[in-house]
Amino acid sequence: MSDIRYWYEDLTPGRVFRHGDRKVTAEEIIRFAQEFDPQPFHLSEEAGKASILGGLSASGWHTCSMTMRMYYDNILRWSSSEGAPGIDTIEWRKPVLAGDTLSGETKVIEARALNSRPGIGIVRLHHTIINQNGETVMFMDNPGMFRMRLGADA
Amino acid sequence: MSDIRYWYEDLTPGRVFRHGDRKVTAEEIIRFAQEFDPQPFHLSEEAGKASILGGLSASGWHTCSMTMRMYYDNILRWSSSEGAPGIDTIEWRKPVLAGDTLSGETKVIEARALNSRPGIGIVRLHHTIINQNGETVMFMDNPGMFRMRLGADA
Repeated sequence: MSDIRYWYEDLTPGRVFRHGDRKVTAEEIIRFAQEFDPQPFHLSEEAGKASILGGLSASGWHTCSMTMRMYYDNILRWSSSEGAPGIDTIEWRKPVLAGDTLSGETKVIEARALNSRPGIGIVRLHHTIINQNGETVMFMDNPGMFRMRLGADA
Repeated sequence: MSDIRYWYEDLTPGRVFRHGDRKVTAEEIIRFAQEFDPQPFHLSEEAGKASILGGLSASGWHTCSMTMRMYYDNILRWSSSEGAPGIDTIEWRKPVLAGDTLSGETKVIEARALNSRPGIGIVRLHHTIINQNGETVMFMDNPGMFRMRLGADA
């Protein structure tokens, strides 16, 4: 476990992690939608243009899943994560359209030790995902559990 | 649009929709995780057994996505849905393990007209997903927008 960079103690309120560019293709939007969310505006450009979304747009769950991958690549895989009990809020603020490029940040909002589980702390994270125009497409409030460095057999 | 069964007016508080059985395979758990959430306990039985999850377990986002498909198949595809602005709460209460069989229900909690968008109402739905042992694995609080029958050119 010596490759852990981010223990509970490293996730201090105010700390910000950046997420690099992630291009979203029509092919992956359609593939995800066929399996999990086959609403017409997630399956074709024509149906997307005819909807209030304005074009072929990713399922909100696809956007969550892509965000999870950015969060994993940039934080979680380097961390002492013990998983998450859930999600407190998801806001799908703008459509994610085929051809969009996503980026964003994860900000640490608060951190506190868990009385019920010694050596574990809960960290509230805000993930904000933007498109190439700087518009926020999704916001997520995500509590996560992380082991403490103090006392770890690192 | 004559195949719409569920308009805003049909989604009355207290109404419950059942979701039929959905088997979860190791193959699909691993495939989803490789793309979106490659934490070890989502990728192999061995790593799952070594974790607090107790076995190869689905990403929480995979469980959300499978729930979306059940919600689509049983409600959304037959409805006047205008999409969802987000999710208010997700609780991942128990691991979803390879070989589990999911079912559950969607309950209408409240419904109100949107002043800002005439002809559209917002409906609060609670999705509760259980496994073959009757244990709740996930709970989700999901507001959705639906067009009203009244005034629709059906």
